[in-house]
Amino acid sequence: PPGKKVLIVYAHQEPKSFNGSLKSIAEEELSKQGCSVTVSDLYAMQFEPRTTRNDIVGCLHNSEEFKYVVEAREAYKRGALSNDIIEEQKKVQEADLLIFQFPLYWFSMPAIMKGWVDRVFVPGFAFELPKHYDSGLLKNKLALFSFTTGGSKEVYTKGGMSGDIRYILWPMQHGIMHFCGIKVLAPHICFAPDYASEKERKEMLTAWAQRLKTLWKEEPINCSPEWYFE
Amino acid sequence: PPGKKVLIVYAHQEPKSFNGSLKSIAEEELSKQGCSVTVSDLYAMQFEPRTTRNDIVGCLHNSEEFKYVVEAREAYKRGALSNDIIEEQKKVQEADLLIFQFPLYWFSMPAIMKGWVDRVFVPGFAFELPKHYDSGLLKNKLALFSFTTGGSKEVYTKGGMSGDIRYILWPMQHGIMHFCGIKVLAPHICFAPDYASEKERKEMLTAWAQRLKTLWKEEPINCSPEWYFE
Repeated sequence: PPGKKVLIVYAHQEPKSFNGSLKSIAEEELSKQGCSVTVSDLYAMQFEPRTTRNDIVGCLHNSEEFKYVVEAREAYKRGALSNDIIEEQKKVQEADLLIFQFPLYWFSMPAIMKGWVDRVFVPGFAFELPKHYDSGLLKNKLALFSFTTGGSKEVYTKGGMSGDIRYILWPMQHGIMHFCGIKVLAPHICFAPDYASEKERKEMLTAWAQRLKTLWKEEPINCSPEWYFE
Repeated sequence: PPGKKVLIVYAHQEPKSFNGSLKSIAEEELSKQGCSVTVSDLYAMQFEPRTTRNDIVGCLHNSEEFKYVVEAREAYKRGALSNDIIEEQKKVQEADLLIFQFPLYWFSMPAIMKGWVDRVFVPGFAFELPKHYDSGLLKNKLALFSFTTGGSKEVYTKGGMSGDIRYILWPMQHGIMHFCGIKVLAPHICFAPDYASEKERKEMLTAWAQRLKTLWKEEPINCSPEWYFE
């Protein structure tokens, strides 16, 4: 609905790709609804995935022994994280909904997107023990994982070679989003678009556009072990 | 035993860290046994985690629409992957055992290590459909995940907030290693060394050194859904 803010974190090298189309559809459909949509196009931004000393501007809290998590928390507090991280944190802070759009790489997100999480979801910003899970600092936000796979739907079932697709979602949906207090909408999965016909690909794109029309009426999943493993 | 080749893929920014000690212990103990040990120290190498067009030397197979997996496979075949990838592939090819040493970041490996997998385990090199899982191209190799956690052992149990630690291992052990035909030894997990006493930390280091003494006698785990989810 009008006024809602959406951040699309997008990881594909090629604008003409199927992932690129899914991203554009979300951008258009949500804008049409009156949402304000921001896209972090990670490859286009040449986003830095590595967690290093360069992320901290100025002196270190402990220059004798570098501990990234400690340094990042301290730097967050005094506003001394590198600019690219601060920019992304602002976008997250403002967003009501985060959409992650990516091709599944090795049962997970591409490294460039994992690095976005590693560097942006800093303690003090995304959580601060004991404030995690339901009391995580990013509560009142929603997240949705939208991705494509190489394998077919059958491969990602309990009896299939690669197991239930939900097993793969556990580290991302529960371990990252739920950990920070973010509620998770059902994932949107396009299985093996590379092996689909043009007609099937169009149907997949239409299905995404359709889903987006009523997205704000959806209830989050129950992000607990039962959803994933039972 | 003498003659065995080991590659340690290591991701920590700080040589003085607990992960750094675990890495050094493996290096020393396995060398003492007469193994030839190579370390890929990813942060020291400033290893590139992003999968981009820069990974392909010369012309693209399809310059109209960039598909990383297609381009990487074609480039592998004609020896046109970038040098840093070729170097790592040589190390993997020669190794009998791969040890991954890292701090757990968001229920997974740090982005720099995920990028090592994304870029090095190229189709044609690590698998070539239908050659995957038990017939993956890296069969006859072993892998071992050795990592530290932030949370305590209790947190990573079936009833704990973060669920069974094995849920987290599924994408890495099954989705990456088993997918390429690599057999997996039991993981080596040091829970919450940051919250442990000096004495406990020393005990953890000693336990790792002890395990390494009889490592070559170990049987791989049965890397199937039962091991992870039952």
